[in-house]
Amino acid sequence: MSEKMKAAVKLKPTPKSTEIRPIPTPQPHPDEVLIRVKISSICGTDVHIYDWDAWAAKRIKVPLIQGHEFAGEIEKVGSNVTGLSKGDYVSAEGHIACGRCTMCRTGNAHVCKNVSIIGIDRDGAFAEYLTAPASNVIVNDDDLPPELATIQDPLGNAVYTVTSANVPGKTVAIFGLGPIGLMAVALCRAMAARKVIAVGRKNQYRMDLAKKVGAHLVLRSSETLIDEIMDATAGEGVDESLEFSGSEEAVQQAIQITHPAGGIHVLGVFPKDLNLDISTFVTKGLSMYGIHGRLMYKTWVQMGGLLKSGNLNLKPILTHRFPLDDYNKAMEVMRSGNCGKVAFPMEG
Amino acid sequence: MSEKMKAAVKLKPTPKSTEIRPIPTPQPHPDEVLIRVKISSICGTDVHIYDWDAWAAKRIKVPLIQGHEFAGEIEKVGSNVTGLSKGDYVSAEGHIACGRCTMCRTGNAHVCKNVSIIGIDRDGAFAEYLTAPASNVIVNDDDLPPELATIQDPLGNAVYTVTSANVPGKTVAIFGLGPIGLMAVALCRAMAARKVIAVGRKNQYRMDLAKKVGAHLVLRSSETLIDEIMDATAGEGVDESLEFSGSEEAVQQAIQITHPAGGIHVLGVFPKDLNLDISTFVTKGLSMYGIHGRLMYKTWVQMGGLLKSGNLNLKPILTHRFPLDDYNKAMEVMRSGNCGKVAFPMEG
Amino acid sequence: MSEKMKAAVKLKPTPKSTEIRPIPTPQPHPDEVLIRVKISSICGTDVHIYDWDAWAAKRIKVPLIQGHEFAGEIEKVGSNVTGLSKGDYVSAEGHIACGRCTMCRTGNAHVCKNVSIIGIDRDGAFAEYLTAPASNVIVNDDDLPPELATIQDPLGNAVYTVTSANVPGKTVAIFGLGPIGLMAVALCRAMAARKVIAVGRKNQYRMDLAKKVGAHLVLRSSETLIDEIMDATAGEGVDESLEFSGSEEAVQQAIQITHPAGGIHVLGVFPKDLNLDISTFVTKGLSMYGIHGRLMYKTWVQMGGLLKSGNLNLKPILTHRFPLDDYNKAMEVMRSGNCGKVAFPMEG
Amino acid sequence: MSEKMKAAVKLKPTPKSTEIRPIPTPQPHPDEVLIRVKISSICGTDVHIYDWDAWAAKRIKVPLIQGHEFAGEIEKVGSNVTGLSKGDYVSAEGHIACGRCTMCRTGNAHVCKNVSIIGIDRDGAFAEYLTAPASNVIVNDDDLPPELATIQDPLGNAVYTVTSANVPGKTVAIFGLGPIGLMAVALCRAMAARKVIAVGRKNQYRMDLAKKVGAHLVLRSSETLIDEIMDATAGEGVDESLEFSGSEEAVQQAIQITHPAGGIHVLGVFPKDLNLDISTFVTKGLSMYGIHGRLMYKTWVQMGGLLKSGNLNLKPILTHRFPLDDYNKAMEVMRSGNCGKVAFPMEG
Repeated sequence: MSEKMKAAVKLKPTPKSTEIRPIPTPQPHPDEVLIRVKISSICGTDVHIYDWDAWAAKRIKVPLIQGHEFAGEIEKVGSNVTGLSKGDYVSAEGHIACGRCTMCRTGNAHVCKNVSIIGIDRDGAFAEYLTAPASNVIVNDDDLPPELATIQDPLGNAVYTVTSANVPGKTVAIFGLGPIGLMAVALCRAMAARKVIAVGRKNQYRMDLAKKVGAHLVLRSSETLIDEIMDATAGEGVDESLEFSGSEEAVQQAIQITHPAGGIHVLGVFPKDLNLDISTFVTKGLSMYGIHGRLMYKTWVQMGGLLKSGNLNLKPILTHRFPLDDYNKAMEVMRSGNCGKVAFPMEG
Repeated sequence: MSEKMKAAVKLKPTPKSTEIRPIPTPQPHPDEVLIRVKISSICGTDVHIYDWDAWAAKRIKVPLIQGHEFAGEIEKVGSNVTGLSKGDYVSAEGHIACGRCTMCRTGNAHVCKNVSIIGIDRDGAFAEYLTAPASNVIVNDDDLPPELATIQDPLGNAVYTVTSANVPGKTVAIFGLGPIGLMAVALCRAMAARKVIAVGRKNQYRMDLAKKVGAHLVLRSSETLIDEIMDATAGEGVDESLEFSGSEEAVQQAIQITHPAGGIHVLGVFPKDLNLDISTFVTKGLSMYGIHGRLMYKTWVQMGGLLKSGNLNLKPILTHRFPLDDYNKAMEVMRSGNCGKVAFPMEG
Repeated sequence: MSEKMKAAVKLKPTPKSTEIRPIPTPQPHPDEVLIRVKISSICGTDVHIYDWDAWAAKRIKVPLIQGHEFAGEIEKVGSNVTGLSKGDYVSAEGHIACGRCTMCRTGNAHVCKNVSIIGIDRDGAFAEYLTAPASNVIVNDDDLPPELATIQDPLGNAVYTVTSANVPGKTVAIFGLGPIGLMAVALCRAMAARKVIAVGRKNQYRMDLAKKVGAHLVLRSSETLIDEIMDATAGEGVDESLEFSGSEEAVQQAIQITHPAGGIHVLGVFPKDLNLDISTFVTKGLSMYGIHGRLMYKTWVQMGGLLKSGNLNLKPILTHRFPLDDYNKAMEVMRSGNCGKVAFPMEG
Repeated sequence: MSEKMKAAVKLKPTPKSTEIRPIPTPQPHPDEVLIRVKISSICGTDVHIYDWDAWAAKRIKVPLIQGHEFAGEIEKVGSNVTGLSKGDYVSAEGHIACGRCTMCRTGNAHVCKNVSIIGIDRDGAFAEYLTAPASNVIVNDDDLPPELATIQDPLGNAVYTVTSANVPGKTVAIFGLGPIGLMAVALCRAMAARKVIAVGRKNQYRMDLAKKVGAHLVLRSSETLIDEIMDATAGEGVDESLEFSGSEEAVQQAIQITHPAGGIHVLGVFPKDLNLDISTFVTKGLSMYGIHGRLMYKTWVQMGGLLKSGNLNLKPILTHRFPLDDYNKAMEVMRSGNCGKVAFPMEG
């Protein structure tokens, strides 16, 4: 481990403005570990920061190394850390919870009131090394390929959403076919959902991916969508709707096509308030669940098992790999939408 | 049992238009029972029909005897009925489920797709006698006073809402202090909620009733409500919000004052769509539950137990009693809002 | 439909004593349907009756046509029946619930206090026709092959057990590899269990079947079983244990190898009381669930979806088919244990 | 804070052998706090150690200051501790979890594989001061009287058991009327159980206490107990059984008197294996839950709310108070069984 490392550093509070440059390798605090990054991957949030949108301008302080999705090897262990060792093959939960608030004390650390996030509130994984609190580090199974290990943070979002809906044997509608929506399709198939209906909007590339990861039916959202789904479910509607699109229309459609006593599980990020047909919602006895992050660390343990099961077909989602030096190019692919997950392998 | 009975018959598809008159006593079909009404009570829905609002004009066919809240005695048993006998002291679930749809077959008869309702889709309890399907009849505990037995249909709404929120030890905000909201206050106190915060709007009479049935704190909705509730909960917010008001503002307030991972349980009837701060809802990991009717018949069994427990203080809610001949007067009291439950005792 | 039908009639309260003979075709009561049997299959219970063991001698009245597993076509519909038609492709839940007891009224009809069972308390499916209450009839998906439709009653046992354990992503031990245990193996694989460990005892034939339907690991119960399972789970133990063997030793092993806070789901039929290490059970915070029958009809709906999912590999379990005329031969195969499911196809 | 403090020190690996003597006041490690004890109370476990039974001889290392039930004030805060301050009014969870094992990482720290316990594995609260890890410290509500604050550890056992049974509106049988069983009686009443049936054995003193804290019915276990409970429940049996007695007979009775689909919640400590009627257990579809410790810290938060509710009548259980100098006398009262909780107030 040399004293300097290569990193993608966002330098200025403006769009793009990220440069690959050598900076001092960070050192772990007593409760942290230092991790050598083997591979990292890009989250939609990283594009928002790259683009320096309103949210980013409010939340982010530069200079910053982005990136919270990664797999790597522990290089150094802080003085208070137990249970982790140099050489361990690890990834990490990106949300660092305070451990003291009522949420943290009652099993809801995923909605900790004092959360800080790797790659957003502190330097992240788009570099040769990063530090992370030992509590957040997950030791990966030796057999898990790094290109899957790196996507566990978003996969965990999908696992939390899909397990919230308890899908075995059920008909499920999935709105929004970004990487997390596509992972949800694969997860529903892995768990023996009766019928998985994937709903896209404009992006044919991702609708094709939905088919590849196992959707029984892929539909394009339109004025006839509700009729199409009712036809595809013999007039019953779906048991559960999963929303990853951040589109008001999707939630409105979900309320119409989810059968009485069913659930709507919402992970999407919405640009504005939602107009909700509350009368239908109540009369049908529907439930709606806000899904944020991943259960810490129940979702991670369950995800480890799902990855081991052999049922999970995620390979088609891993579409692009770039050297870190092609950072801007990778971000542009993400912005195009014609991709699944985009990764930065750091070796070989 | 004579061949004629006294009944309040809504005669015309216009406001008011209800007359007390003698009509033929109905006869039970093979799967039904005939019940002599001892007492009945007025639901908010009855006022909508009385007023002949848009909903009523669309749903109701006249002539109709309204009323789905009652207690009485079985007078006659249909030829196929088993397990019920003449003289049984009974009330009834007002929702008649089809028993064949997927909802009915999977424990969700409360959201049956083919439901019909006593006093709405068929003649009801504002009369000396009514018929009801044997499946819907509940045998009351001998010790249960008729003035409580008659309000079990709305009390069941409240029980379903409160049990959905699992309140023991929790801080609960209750929005809307109509009879069902007031019952919810009493139920939360009966089950050892930590703190019950009742939120009214304009009606001081009902805010006083909320205090009488045990609210720890009664607040009037205003621009400062959120701050007042945060102050009253040491900045934590409430664990669960129960919504009975049908007001958009109440749901919006609930999203702000319910702490992360909490629940919002909505029974209210809303005149229009709802503008929902979906970003806050998702980021806080909240859940929202549409509550409709009563679980058939799990809620009834649990309600029977709660009424037996001795913890439930409902008496202050039983504010008005009228002879059936004063039907119009009783409806006017309901419309004034200066009342709890309004009942028609049929005897003595 | 002729007036006589072929049936396997148990004639005397003694072992074997079943003859294939023509008897009058039964007629449906008003709430029943008459079903033409396309295929039926043998349950372990049928062997107990065939053998006339102590349980059978106490419960069964002869003459009796056994058989509660079948698929067929509705031939005739009783006068009160709605929602079912001649020609419908159907199977049936074998437990006929009373509909009136507290269990039935609260969503627990599977443990109805007044249950009677098709093929045990009334004539069953080992015949050309049988009658069944309309409430118990399940309309099968057109695509479901009859040889799978007929085994839905035992498959429903397995579905109820496996869903009680919520297996996606979990490590599961399955004790007892009779047909229901084997179905549970297939179900756990279908739902993406992390690792499925199947535990047999003496029957190599069925241990081989366990491998064929997807067990990751098949072990023979012995003094070293606990060590073998702990080794196979990196010392963690399993998340959930499913017990189908009826063996005391299996439950005792389950308590040792299920990790703290895990569940033990017991469907097995036991010849005697169980010696339970209650201290370990309590200290580990384990839970134990008695699984009886199938949830009516939630399990059936979920099973329909699982069968449609395409994930379920049940074919290896369908090992034997005999014409009804070879009834005794079929029973002998069942008694040998060298079989999966044994069926009587009734047609071509 | 002086350098020496008074403490009850168990000096030798033999019965009794505890002396009140001055010893050095302990100092908190960086992650710990030092607490000045205001009051402590005796757990049944403390009597086992006092008596030096087989379990104690195996587990306990002398010298030891016993005691894990207490309330006090923080005197000093370790260098790494945040969120706690000198002067805070606190109690503590007695189970110190490792935070790293799978149990701790998945919300099941109460069954941590590497647990150590205050007053058992390290010095406890029968002294003027004790140290405890900051993570285990609970800040009490200012209004909570110290004599209630000190019993929160056992009350938490009762809360966990009672909430596992979800008692509002239910009929509950409580087996075993030691302090935790009595607390469960009070909790069931506080939460509006339909009927609370308390079952004692020989101790009339505690059967009288059960009545005082609100049992609707107190029965003495005998050959006719099952009949008495069935009579008291109109032949239905109870919804839930809670077992605190550690008696095999109690669990056997619970299986008979709990109605189908009901639950048996077992916290009792058993001297030997249990003979369980597994056939009845499975056929009735019962569930059995091992209850160990308290959910960390969900049970504590809920308990705080229950104590605030005003519904909880625990005062009759607080029967005895001794100065610490009367340690042996207090232990003898505990051994007699003619007591509720026995406390050591340290002040005034």
